[in-house]
Amino acid sequence: MKNFTFQSPTKFVFGRDTHRKAGQLVAALGAKKVMVLYGGGSAIQNGTLPVVLQSLDEAGLDYVSAGGVQPNPVSSFVYSAIEGARDEGVDFMLAVGGGSVIDTAKAVALGVPYPGDFLDFYRGKKVEEALPIGVVLTIPAAGSEGSPNTVITDESTHIKKGAAGECLRPKFAVLNPELTFTLSKYQSACGISDMMAHIFERYFTKTPENVVTDRLCEGLLLAIKDVAMRIIIDSEDYEAQAALMWAGMLAHNNLCGVGRDQDWGSHALAHQISALYDAAHGAALAVIFPAWMKYVYTEDIDMFARIAHNVWGVPESVNKEQMALDGIAVYEDFLRGIGMPTKLSQLDVPEDGIPEMVELAFALGNQTIGSFKRMTPTDVEAVYRLAL
Amino acid sequence: MKNFTFQSPTKFVFGRDTHRKAGQLVAALGAKKVMVLYGGGSAIQNGTLPVVLQSLDEAGLDYVSAGGVQPNPVSSFVYSAIEGARDEGVDFMLAVGGGSVIDTAKAVALGVPYPGDFLDFYRGKKVEEALPIGVVLTIPAAGSEGSPNTVITDESTHIKKGAAGECLRPKFAVLNPELTFTLSKYQSACGISDMMAHIFERYFTKTPENVVTDRLCEGLLLAIKDVAMRIIIDSEDYEAQAALMWAGMLAHNNLCGVGRDQDWGSHALAHQISALYDAAHGAALAVIFPAWMKYVYTEDIDMFARIAHNVWGVPESVNKEQMALDGIAVYEDFLRGIGMPTKLSQLDVPEDGIPEMVELAFALGNQTIGSFKRMTPTDVEAVYRLAL
Repeated sequence: MKNFTFQSPTKFVFGRDTHRKAGQLVAALGAKKVMVLYGGGSAIQNGTLPVVLQSLDEAGLDYVSAGGVQPNPVSSFVYSAIEGARDEGVDFMLAVGGGSVIDTAKAVALGVPYPGDFLDFYRGKKVEEALPIGVVLTIPAAGSEGSPNTVITDESTHIKKGAAGECLRPKFAVLNPELTFTLSKYQSACGISDMMAHIFERYFTKTPENVVTDRLCEGLLLAIKDVAMRIIIDSEDYEAQAALMWAGMLAHNNLCGVGRDQDWGSHALAHQISALYDAAHGAALAVIFPAWMKYVYTEDIDMFARIAHNVWGVPESVNKEQMALDGIAVYEDFLRGIGMPTKLSQLDVPEDGIPEMVELAFALGNQTIGSFKRMTPTDVEAVYRLAL
Repeated sequence: MKNFTFQSPTKFVFGRDTHRKAGQLVAALGAKKVMVLYGGGSAIQNGTLPVVLQSLDEAGLDYVSAGGVQPNPVSSFVYSAIEGARDEGVDFMLAVGGGSVIDTAKAVALGVPYPGDFLDFYRGKKVEEALPIGVVLTIPAAGSEGSPNTVITDESTHIKKGAAGECLRPKFAVLNPELTFTLSKYQSACGISDMMAHIFERYFTKTPENVVTDRLCEGLLLAIKDVAMRIIIDSEDYEAQAALMWAGMLAHNNLCGVGRDQDWGSHALAHQISALYDAAHGAALAVIFPAWMKYVYTEDIDMFARIAHNVWGVPESVNKEQMALDGIAVYEDFLRGIGMPTKLSQLDVPEDGIPEMVELAFALGNQTIGSFKRMTPTDVEAVYRLAL
């Protein structure tokens, strides 16, 4: 285990009706003027946003709201929200939505007190100051409600890039599983794929000996696997949605990543699919991760055999390589079972689009991608081809 | 799952040499005058305390130190430390030790700003204010480094009682596994028993449907089981000690207890053994928990069969009751294997001491103990007798 620092100070307020507490949670933090960000209108239609705004009113808070954040959120929205927030004297960002809304709120929170271009932070500038952020989560997937991370697509280059800093961890996150009942099967399946991917990126490591984290990762994956089909069958299964919502946070607040090198190569590859072909993040991950696993499993066959047994139920055998391959196959079947694509063609990515994605993946001058296997452009092309 | 709020804001600084950072961690919190608490002198002998004090000096901090905290810490020490802290104008408590030292530091932190008797908080008064607390952990066991809890024995009544409040969560906890190398096999085994007990108290619940927490509990128990014997064989096995140290924190910061009723009956029974016979807390739990399990498993045979399979490796069978009993037997064997007692006689508790322990367990006017099974005095006596 490597030395590490872990601090996850976010206050998680979990359960039925908890979104009614948003106003008092913001007020308790001393905020005066709130910017409420939301997405494509479902938060209005399903009644979440009106209840949240009412709770702000009841807490005596002044606010402005800005809707229309799109999946794979883009820089133009952020620029305009930063301007609006400055004009209005906003001192608190409240995200009502999923990962795209939260990541956008984090970008605005970074941009308001910063005199330069907020994208500087997504190009490597150290994150040190941001407006405080609160979350009312409506889509369990990205884990941004408990993470220090944000991902934004720079529209000028089509490059999807991340920034991170401890001040970007939300001060509170309201997690009411009832708010997920109106999600489509496809949205839920994308979320399931995304949160499993967050665990895989941390699980597959060359850092030796991290038995606690290994078992926590496997436990979370088992729990997600156990409830996934229940949610696809009945989106109003409260207990299953509750498990998924909590698992999604734990998958990405870095509890599952402490003390070890993490990979994040598959995320890098999936980001190019989303940036160029506007695929849902979770769907792009469902296409890339099985391909990546098939390409890299020989780096540590025992590790792949172990997850095959402990998570995917593959029987123990002396043939570890077969166990590893069977585990990947069961995972792929699981993804298909919940309605996810597992091939690039299902995302309308043509074979001749691969060179551009490879180029984009290395556009920032990086020599390799990932740490479990340090992939060169040749490796990355091979993974994309395995996903054809 | 029940509604819950979870916030674990402690900054965990984990790894080799991290105790050298204690001074800068305290200074970053704005403290001026530190009281350093420690236990029976091993922190001096093994060199931990001098290094910590040097780091305070280097950070330009003024401090007083107070040693001699005993296992099962008592109120008289707390009273005198509160007086000393007030005289010296102490504004920060730094605990260098295990659960007893940390719990004592929390008691002093509560008492300094409170004009009444600090034990009021252990008799039910709401905890709202305390001096900030930092920890340099030397014994992985109690989990107090990440918890809002403290337990102190009132010497006037021999009653061991707890208090809890979010302000009692340490601001930081330094976890350096190297500091555990000098622990005896017995101390390590007590710690293993204690942290497993913290998970059991949360695992066994009548609250339905909490699959994420179930899997996290099982994962932690598996990890502890996997490294336990390595530590008993070689106390300088860094990776095993690191796993145990991190698991001990996670077992008790309540990650494994959210959204469900918790039991804590076995802790109540074990506390009476420690209070009257001065047994180590982990050893008392090793005696009580198997007995409690044998007495209550019929409350939910499926749950006991599940943990038997998932943690203790008992093969699946249609005879769930046999699986449950086999699981308890494997756990008892495990405890014996690491050198723990599993019978009251091994702690020099005589059969005719049972009535006094039962009386003491109900001395505060409570009608029942525990929630998985609400135990009456008759039940409690039966559990003690099963431990004979």
